[in-house]
Amino acid sequence: MSGSSIGQRLVLTSFGESHGKSIGAVLDGCPAGLEIDEKDIQKMLDQRRPGQNLISTQRKEKDIVEIISGVFRGHTTGAPITMLIWNSDQKSKDYENLRTKLRPGHSDYPAMMKYNQYNDHRGGGRFSGRLTATHVMGGAIARKLLKVTLGIETNSFTLQIGKTKMEREFNEKMVNSIYKNDVRCPELKTAKIMKENILSAKKKGDSLGGIIESITTKVPVGLGEPIFSSLESELSKAIFSIPSVKGVEFGSGFAGSELFGSENNDLYTIKKGKIITKTNNSGGILGGISNGMPITMRIAFKPASSIAQKQSTVDIKTKKEATLQVKGRHDPCVVPRAPPVVDSLVSLTIADQALISGVIKPVL
Amino acid sequence: MSGSSIGQRLVLTSFGESHGKSIGAVLDGCPAGLEIDEKDIQKMLDQRRPGQNLISTQRKEKDIVEIISGVFRGHTTGAPITMLIWNSDQKSKDYENLRTKLRPGHSDYPAMMKYNQYNDHRGGGRFSGRLTATHVMGGAIARKLLKVTLGIETNSFTLQIGKTKMEREFNEKMVNSIYKNDVRCPELKTAKIMKENILSAKKKGDSLGGIIESITTKVPVGLGEPIFSSLESELSKAIFSIPSVKGVEFGSGFAGSELFGSENNDLYTIKKGKIITKTNNSGGILGGISNGMPITMRIAFKPASSIAQKQSTVDIKTKKEATLQVKGRHDPCVVPRAPPVVDSLVSLTIADQALISGVIKPVL
Amino acid sequence: MSGSSIGQRLVLTSFGESHGKSIGAVLDGCPAGLEIDEKDIQKMLDQRRPGQNLISTQRKEKDIVEIISGVFRGHTTGAPITMLIWNSDQKSKDYENLRTKLRPGHSDYPAMMKYNQYNDHRGGGRFSGRLTATHVMGGAIARKLLKVTLGIETNSFTLQIGKTKMEREFNEKMVNSIYKNDVRCPELKTAKIMKENILSAKKKGDSLGGIIESITTKVPVGLGEPIFSSLESELSKAIFSIPSVKGVEFGSGFAGSELFGSENNDLYTIKKGKIITKTNNSGGILGGISNGMPITMRIAFKPASSIAQKQSTVDIKTKKEATLQVKGRHDPCVVPRAPPVVDSLVSLTIADQALISGVIKPVL
Amino acid sequence: MSGSSIGQRLVLTSFGESHGKSIGAVLDGCPAGLEIDEKDIQKMLDQRRPGQNLISTQRKEKDIVEIISGVFRGHTTGAPITMLIWNSDQKSKDYENLRTKLRPGHSDYPAMMKYNQYNDHRGGGRFSGRLTATHVMGGAIARKLLKVTLGIETNSFTLQIGKTKMEREFNEKMVNSIYKNDVRCPELKTAKIMKENILSAKKKGDSLGGIIESITTKVPVGLGEPIFSSLESELSKAIFSIPSVKGVEFGSGFAGSELFGSENNDLYTIKKGKIITKTNNSGGILGGISNGMPITMRIAFKPASSIAQKQSTVDIKTKKEATLQVKGRHDPCVVPRAPPVVDSLVSLTIADQALISGVIKPVL
Repeated sequence: MSGSSIGQRLVLTSFGESHGKSIGAVLDGCPAGLEIDEKDIQKMLDQRRPGQNLISTQRKEKDIVEIISGVFRGHTTGAPITMLIWNSDQKSKDYENLRTKLRPGHSDYPAMMKYNQYNDHRGGGRFSGRLTATHVMGGAIARKLLKVTLGIETNSFTLQIGKTKMEREFNEKMVNSIYKNDVRCPELKTAKIMKENILSAKKKGDSLGGIIESITTKVPVGLGEPIFSSLESELSKAIFSIPSVKGVEFGSGFAGSELFGSENNDLYTIKKGKIITKTNNSGGILGGISNGMPITMRIAFKPASSIAQKQSTVDIKTKKEATLQVKGRHDPCVVPRAPPVVDSLVSLTIADQALISGVIKPVL
Repeated sequence: MSGSSIGQRLVLTSFGESHGKSIGAVLDGCPAGLEIDEKDIQKMLDQRRPGQNLISTQRKEKDIVEIISGVFRGHTTGAPITMLIWNSDQKSKDYENLRTKLRPGHSDYPAMMKYNQYNDHRGGGRFSGRLTATHVMGGAIARKLLKVTLGIETNSFTLQIGKTKMEREFNEKMVNSIYKNDVRCPELKTAKIMKENILSAKKKGDSLGGIIESITTKVPVGLGEPIFSSLESELSKAIFSIPSVKGVEFGSGFAGSELFGSENNDLYTIKKGKIITKTNNSGGILGGISNGMPITMRIAFKPASSIAQKQSTVDIKTKKEATLQVKGRHDPCVVPRAPPVVDSLVSLTIADQALISGVIKPVL
Repeated sequence: MSGSSIGQRLVLTSFGESHGKSIGAVLDGCPAGLEIDEKDIQKMLDQRRPGQNLISTQRKEKDIVEIISGVFRGHTTGAPITMLIWNSDQKSKDYENLRTKLRPGHSDYPAMMKYNQYNDHRGGGRFSGRLTATHVMGGAIARKLLKVTLGIETNSFTLQIGKTKMEREFNEKMVNSIYKNDVRCPELKTAKIMKENILSAKKKGDSLGGIIESITTKVPVGLGEPIFSSLESELSKAIFSIPSVKGVEFGSGFAGSELFGSENNDLYTIKKGKIITKTNNSGGILGGISNGMPITMRIAFKPASSIAQKQSTVDIKTKKEATLQVKGRHDPCVVPRAPPVVDSLVSLTIADQALISGVIKPVL
Repeated sequence: MSGSSIGQRLVLTSFGESHGKSIGAVLDGCPAGLEIDEKDIQKMLDQRRPGQNLISTQRKEKDIVEIISGVFRGHTTGAPITMLIWNSDQKSKDYENLRTKLRPGHSDYPAMMKYNQYNDHRGGGRFSGRLTATHVMGGAIARKLLKVTLGIETNSFTLQIGKTKMEREFNEKMVNSIYKNDVRCPELKTAKIMKENILSAKKKGDSLGGIIESITTKVPVGLGEPIFSSLESELSKAIFSIPSVKGVEFGSGFAGSELFGSENNDLYTIKKGKIITKTNNSGGILGGISNGMPITMRIAFKPASSIAQKQSTVDIKTKKEATLQVKGRHDPCVVPRAPPVVDSLVSLTIADQALISGVIKPVL
C-alpha cells in the first residue's frame, strides 16, 4: 500500500495537485448495488467548497464532480468508482516560480528535502488543503452506504474557534443547525462570536485554529480488529491525513486522564432491552471495538499557517535568514470547512471496518 | 493485513493471550546485519514488567524473552525474528469461569458480542495490557536499529498523573532521571507526589490516569508518506493500539488550537549551518513529513478500568442490572509502565518509515 | 488492498469499463525525477491497440492517453500519476440489453453470480481485454524507470500460435524483429504461417491460442522477498491478471520436470569476472530471488472465447439449454496484442521489487 | 506486508530456519469457533514428514506441532493461532562452516548476494524445503475450515515423475489411493514404476522432478477479486512460494493453447437444476472468478538440486572454478512430499477469498 491510499476493504486512492489538471479519487471495494448519483457527492463537496462567504478564501472553485467509472444505471457495480474535479484555472499559475523562502508552518521545507526539485510546489501541490476534496468524494459514498445499510450517521461540527467554545453539549436536535451558519457551529450565538473573531483575525493578517467534534450514531457493537487495527487506530490514522490536524481524542480524552477510575468508568444499564452505558466517556470504543454507544471524537486544528503578516524565515537558496510575507487569498481559519472532511474520513473508516467484520456485505 | 500486525516494511505481528501458553511477536523486515541479543530486549521488558514496586500490580511475571528465529551468530539475518515469553502460571487459571457481569471500562461486552462465547476471556485474554510486552519485543529491536543507523533516540516519560503535572518542560538532561523513580517522571519532586497520589487512590480502591510525553531526536528530514501515510497518521495508529490510550497530540496539539497563526507558526532560522525552527509547535512534523526537529507527542491514558470499588453493571446472562466488585491484583495506574511501550511503538513506526524512504537499507 | 490494485511500493490501480466513460490507471510510488512524457506511454499503447491489421478486431479505438496528475515540468514528482483514455464511442452501447445466454469461456456467468444484476456487462465491462490498456499505462512508466536506472529491458514476443512454434531459440538480435510483423513473432517465416493460421481460423468462425515468451535482461542479483513474495510468486500473480492466461512457467518449466537433476542444474562459471551459469534452466530465479541471469517466462493463452460459430449454452433467465452465436468484431487470436501487456506487468513487478530491496531509490 | 506473510484476511506468517531453534507459523484472521486440535495439523504434517520411506531423505525429524496461542477450549478464538515445531537436532550443526562453493540449483548465490554474510546458511536456512512444514501448519486449519463451512475439499497427488505419467485421468474414487503408496500417485501400478525410477536415480546420485495435480471440489461460484486478485493470480502466487516449483497451469493450460476456441470453450448445460459446464478446460475459473466447477491445477517441480554427483561450480571466495560434491541425506525427488503442501496453499488461498467475499463469516 502506498501513501495515497487508505483502507483495507474499502480503499480510497487520492490523486491530483492543487494547480495540476485535476484532482480525483478512486474508491475500490464499495459493495455493488448502492444507488449513487453525482448529486450525493456534490452536496458534501459544496459544504467544503471555498469562496462561500467572507471567512473562507475568496478563490472561486466550482468543484464540480464527475463520476467516470464504477457506476452503471445509477448503481455501483462492485468495480472501482473514479471521480474527477477539473482544476478550471490551473493554467495561469503554471509558471509560478519556486518559492525559495520557506513558509513557516507549511510543508515547503520537508517536501523540498524529500522530493528535491521535483515537488510540484504550485499552490501547495499535493499538500494543499484542496486535496481534502478527494477525501470527500469517497467519503460521501461511504456515508451513504452506512446510512442505507445500517442507519449510521456521522455529524461533525465546529466545537471551538480559537478560545471561543460552545457552551452546551451537542445533542441530536442540533444537527440541523450545523450548516445554518458560516462556521458550522450548531450553537448559533456562539457561531456569531466565532465568525467575528475570524474576521477580526483576518483583518490583522492573522489566523485562528479550533476544534471539531464528530459524533457517529447507530454504530453496531463489534467493529474494530484488535490489536493494531483498533477502531481508534484506524480512525486517528484517517483523521491525521487532514492538513492542520495536530490532535485527536476519543470520549473524555485528555480531560479523562485527570479523573479517577470511579468517575471515568461508564456504568452499564439496560434501556428498552438494550445494554447501554449511562455515560459515554469511552467515546463508544472499548478494547478498540465499538460498544454500540455513539463514537465521539474531538480533533484539534492548528491556526492556518498562511498569514499576511511579515514573518522571519530562511531562504533555502542563499541559506540565509530572510523576511517573508505570504500573499494570496487564504482561509483565515480552515476549521469551518473541515466538518464534511471529518465526516468523510470517519465514514470511510467505519464502512471499511463494517465490511471487514461482515456487517456490510460485498453485494447489497 | 490482519489486526494483529502493524507496519509495511518492518512488520510486527503480535500473538498470545494473557493466560494462554505464551505471548510473543514476529518482527519481519528488520534489516540483516543488526547485532542483537536477548539482553537488548530484556532490558526494555524489565522496565515494563509488573510487580516491581507498590504502585504496580503485585502479580509476579518474570517475562523472560527467548529469541527462536531470525538471529544467527549474534546478528539479524533478514529473516523474521520470533520472540517468546512463556506464561509461567497460566495453568491455575484455565478453569476460571466466564464473567457474565460486564466490567465497566473493559472490553468484556464488545468482545463477547464480536466473538461470541469463543473469546478467551481469562485475565483479559487478547485485550490484556500484558500484550504490550509483545510491542516491546519488536520495539526494542527497532529502537536499537534507529540508534545504530541514524542516532535516533526516543524517550517517553510520565508528564502527568491525575491532576499532577510536571512543572518544567522536559530537556535532554532529564533523560537519565526517567527510570530513577517508580512513576517514570524525570522531575523527581513531582514524581514523589505522583506516587503518593497513586497509593492514595489505591487505598480507596480507585485508580488514576495520566499523560505520557514522548520525544524523539535526530529524526532526518523527509520521513512520512503523504497523504494517508503521514507520520502523524502512522504514529497515532500505532499508539492507539495501547489499551487505555484515549488521546494523542503532536507539538502544541490541542493547546495550539487556541493560538493565533502568528503565535503558533515556527519561524525558521539557521544554527550551525542547519535549518531549524526557533520553536517546535509542529512537533517535528509538517505536511505529514518530519522536518528534522524533535518529534514530540503527548498521549492521554484513561484511569485504569479495574477498580476495587463496587460498581453497578449488567449481567449479560440474566440481562438484568447487577453489582460488581472486580477482584485481583491490578495496577492502580498503568501510566508508569507505559513509557517503554510508547518508546517501542514510536521506534517501530519511525523505523518502518525510514525503511520505506530508503534512509535505512535492507542490509546494514 | 483491493482487487483493482497491484504492487507494494509501486502500486498500479486500474479503473474503468469497456463501454463506460473512460478507462484509466493510477500509478503510485513511482520515484520522483523520472522524465516522462505521454509519448512514452502512447508508444506501448499503440503496440497493443486493436484495429491495426486483419488479424485483430476491426473496432477502431484511438486509445489516446492523457496524464492528469503526478507529472510536473516533464518529470514525475513522487505523487500518484493518473492516466486516462476516454472511451470515444461508448454512448451508442448504453442501452445494450443484458445477455441472458451465457457465452462459453467468458466471465458472464460467474460475474452475474458474484455481482447480481449490478455488473456492467456492456462489452465485457470490467472483464474486457480492453482493460489491459490500463496495465500498459503503468507498465510503460515502470519499463522506462527500469531502463533508465538499471538498464533492465523486458522483451516479450509470440513464441507459438496454435500448434505453430518458433523453430529457433530467441536471441538478442531478434528484438528488433518483434514488431516488424503482425503476430509479434521475431522469426519472420514462422510469423507468416502463424498469420495465415489465424486468418484461416477466423474464416471458419473459430479462434486460436498461443504462447508468449518474455525475457528480461540485466536484472541485478537479489530481487524477490522470500518466502511468499518470491519473484516467481509476484510475477505470476501479475501475469495471471491478464484475461485468457492459463499457464505460466519459468526457465525450463514443465519440460524441466522430465529432466534429471544432473541435466537441469545450471552450473556456475566465471565470465569477464562475473559469476554466471552456463545454462539458464532456472529462468534467472533461484530460491525465489533473481540470480543475475535473464528472467525467462513462457505464458499460455487460451484460444479467444468469442467465436462466430454456434455454441450450445444455457439461458440463465429461463434456466434452459439454448443456442448462442456471438456477434461483433472480435480478435480471432489475442496473442499478437499481448506482448506489450506482458512487458508491462513484468516491468511493474520488477520495478516494485527493485524499490523494495533498495536498488532503486524513491528519488532519482 | 513483508515477504514472510501471505493472505489478506486469512494471513499466514511463516518463521524459522532449517537448523535454527524452531520453525513455526502464525495464522491470523481465522474465524472464531472452529473446532481445532493439534491432531488435525499433525496428520497433514505426517504426510509431509521426511524419513518415512526409502525415496525420501533419511533425516529423522519428528515434526511434532504445538499450538501456543489462539485456541481456547478446543476452538479458535478469532485471535492469531501460533504453531511451533522445535528443531530437535539443531545444535550439532551450529558450527557448520559457510559453504563457499556455490551449489548449482540452490539459493546459495543469490542469498549470499542479497543478505551478505548474515544469511543463515545452515541446512538451507530460510530457503530449505523444511519451511514448507509451516505452510502445512496454517494450511491444515484452512483446509478444515473449508470442509466444515462449505464442504470444499482439495486433493493433490503426483501426476508425473520424470517422464512417467498417470495413464488415466483422476477421478474422485482415486482419492483414497493417494496416500496408499510412497509417491502419492493414486494409480498404483504407475506409482510402482515411479518409485523404481526414483530409487534408480538415487542410486546414480541423481534426482528427478515431476508434476503435481490439484483438484478442489465444491468451490462456490464467485470467489476471486478482479482484476489483480484473480483466483489464478492468488493461487499461483501461493504455489510459487514452494521451493522447486517452476510452472503452474489451470485447466487445459499449456495444452489448451494449441486448441481451437471451438474445442477449448466449455459449453454450459444444466444438471439437476444446476448450471455446469460439459468439460472443464477452464479449470473452474473464468474471468478470474470461480465458476463452480472443480478448480484444477498442474504444478511443475524441477528435479531436486542436491545430487551426489560431482558438479563443476565457482568458489565465491576465490572467485575461481571449482568442483563440488554435495553431501548429506537429500530427497532424490521432492514431489512425493509435496501434495500436503499444495493442499495447504490452495486451501489457504481459497479460504482467504471466501472470507473476502463474505461466503465464510468471521465468527462461525
